[in-house]
Amino acid sequence: MTNVAINETHRQQTAQLDVPPRLLMGPGPSNAHPRVLQALGMRQVGHLDPCFIELMNEVQSLLKYAWQTENPTTIPVSATGSAAMEATLANTVEPGDVVLVGVNGYFGHRMMDMAGRYGADVRRIDKPWGEVFSLDELKAGLEEHRPKVLGLVHAETSTGACQPLEGVGDLCREYDCLLLADTVTSLGGLPLFLDEWGVDMAYSGSQKCLSCPPGISPFTLGARAVEKLNQREKKVPNWYLDMSMVGKYWGSERTYHHTAPINMIYGFREALRLIAEEGLAERWARHQTNAELMWEGLASLGMECYVERQHRLPSLITVRIPDGVDGKAITQQFLKDFNIEIGNGLGELAGKAWRIGLMGFNSRPENVHMVLDAFKYTLNR
Amino acid sequence: MTNVAINETHRQQTAQLDVPPRLLMGPGPSNAHPRVLQALGMRQVGHLDPCFIELMNEVQSLLKYAWQTENPTTIPVSATGSAAMEATLANTVEPGDVVLVGVNGYFGHRMMDMAGRYGADVRRIDKPWGEVFSLDELKAGLEEHRPKVLGLVHAETSTGACQPLEGVGDLCREYDCLLLADTVTSLGGLPLFLDEWGVDMAYSGSQKCLSCPPGISPFTLGARAVEKLNQREKKVPNWYLDMSMVGKYWGSERTYHHTAPINMIYGFREALRLIAEEGLAERWARHQTNAELMWEGLASLGMECYVERQHRLPSLITVRIPDGVDGKAITQQFLKDFNIEIGNGLGELAGKAWRIGLMGFNSRPENVHMVLDAFKYTLNR
Repeated sequence: MTNVAINETHRQQTAQLDVPPRLLMGPGPSNAHPRVLQALGMRQVGHLDPCFIELMNEVQSLLKYAWQTENPTTIPVSATGSAAMEATLANTVEPGDVVLVGVNGYFGHRMMDMAGRYGADVRRIDKPWGEVFSLDELKAGLEEHRPKVLGLVHAETSTGACQPLEGVGDLCREYDCLLLADTVTSLGGLPLFLDEWGVDMAYSGSQKCLSCPPGISPFTLGARAVEKLNQREKKVPNWYLDMSMVGKYWGSERTYHHTAPINMIYGFREALRLIAEEGLAERWARHQTNAELMWEGLASLGMECYVERQHRLPSLITVRIPDGVDGKAITQQFLKDFNIEIGNGLGELAGKAWRIGLMGFNSRPENVHMVLDAFKYTLNR
Repeated sequence: MTNVAINETHRQQTAQLDVPPRLLMGPGPSNAHPRVLQALGMRQVGHLDPCFIELMNEVQSLLKYAWQTENPTTIPVSATGSAAMEATLANTVEPGDVVLVGVNGYFGHRMMDMAGRYGADVRRIDKPWGEVFSLDELKAGLEEHRPKVLGLVHAETSTGACQPLEGVGDLCREYDCLLLADTVTSLGGLPLFLDEWGVDMAYSGSQKCLSCPPGISPFTLGARAVEKLNQREKKVPNWYLDMSMVGKYWGSERTYHHTAPINMIYGFREALRLIAEEGLAERWARHQTNAELMWEGLASLGMECYVERQHRLPSLITVRIPDGVDGKAITQQFLKDFNIEIGNGLGELAGKAWRIGLMGFNSRPENVHMVLDAFKYTLNR
């Protein structure tokens, strides 16, 4: 066959897969629902198999329910949430378009970085991390910058703040601007009405309130965004995320573009089925109830949430690190003594706050109690 | 919480996941190894968990063995093979760079499409589908076009032809050009020596000879390619695939970029462990032996392979559709009567050939016999 000698250097001996039974109470990934993990291991079929096409239809329908949208272009992107984020911008931004980003946390910065790579004239409006924009502030931003796209983070995973979106869609229509919403940490965890709120494009992650492992990500384009995509002068400068082609695989044509991540779609479908079974109203209420339990428990330990109550996410809670406490040492102790992962602060909140997730399957009272007990123990309270 | 009524239209009733037990003998995905499916369902840990970092090290080492490379930048991309393909071009091509693509099948076209989106001055050399380029032909192409990158498809999944790469790396160095190789259908199935052959960048898929589901994809950059990336004037115009950032997560810094697809990495690691256990020499020999069994069996049924013997891939066999036979009707009958998936022709081979995969776990004598029996039955031979 060949005369080249095989190099054995990297033929490493490795052990059978085994990992500690972590309780993932950080900013994500959160633990997948057991039924989702089971679905992941189902035997494969081809990505153009008639039975797989049927599963695709179901996934699209269930995702529309979760997001409360009628957008035909509602699909999972074959990669993690950041790719779906990039897909929204890659498809709709043309060089020179003004993109206005509301920056009040880490992911606003990421949106700016991405938009810049697609040639956007990127502008920003700012609020301190942990705060949110008022309608008046957004209106002033639209008036000043006259953007083609306004990007907002509905649920800022870095700060734990929930940006209200009611009324923003109307404002954007007034200024002939598309509304882009990051719903990574809100989809499946708190009230979200894409169509009612006039959101034109949105993305999310699978590994937060959907309780599916990372590797696939919800994506949707409304009619106004699709129109902008269709009127592009040049090809989308990103082949993998080009919705004029991906959309044909998920559309009625079912034309091959790239091989769909079959097993991730199995798991994703199961995660969406769980939402349909529970019902959105019940699911949102469960997240809210458990978040309130956590807020009260933290207060009774003398700990303080970073975000003021009316704008707090139920899915991601930022807690101030008490004076004199080494935040990272505590997260390491959580991992070591309790097998619990909570998150360190990111960006401006590094060293100032911990991030606690109460997402999807993990939003349960017993998990709240375990996290509170771990704080009691590690902080001697 | 909110006064908006929840729209129940898409709250679809769906059945528990179940799919037919297909034998996937087409161009991919091929069936995952049972141990890989089992690994997929392992409980999650965080993407920055110390125990996950250890798994990442193992994955990188085992992937280097499979590809026979010492490249430090050898990682899985968090998406399917087409994204890893795009990553090679996105990171190394700057606007105006001449990229020369050897087009002798469908995936050469895709490489041209992608390179064009990154502003390359795309040139092509052509061979009829199913044939391969000689060193002299490649030298003439380099002489005429003086490209910065030469892209070749080592294993053309659309034609079943294997492009010899021995000597091409030396030629590329002579012309100060990077060699890019598509190894989607060769990695783990046939002799492949990236470093020995002087391949500067390569990508592959998980769902072919690695017997892992699609959704994660091998990617590697050699020193010369990394140098070109480091000398870029502008940011990589693709955030998700920007290796100057992704490389820091997989490098010693382990800096957060995007959330890694934890469970897909579990499965991918198991697939690579299976290669290390079997050994490359044994694995390549197994693929060759089973391919020869298939070739002989097809010949004894009076059927003809599309590619001449010396350039045939052992992993993907293209078979001419006999005159008067409706190729698609036969593939449908395979699915219906045998639960076997084989592939229809793609591009120029549509309607002219079937595509039969003998990849990874599926490259077994009993599968060869089953496919041959199905042909006997459906073609009345």
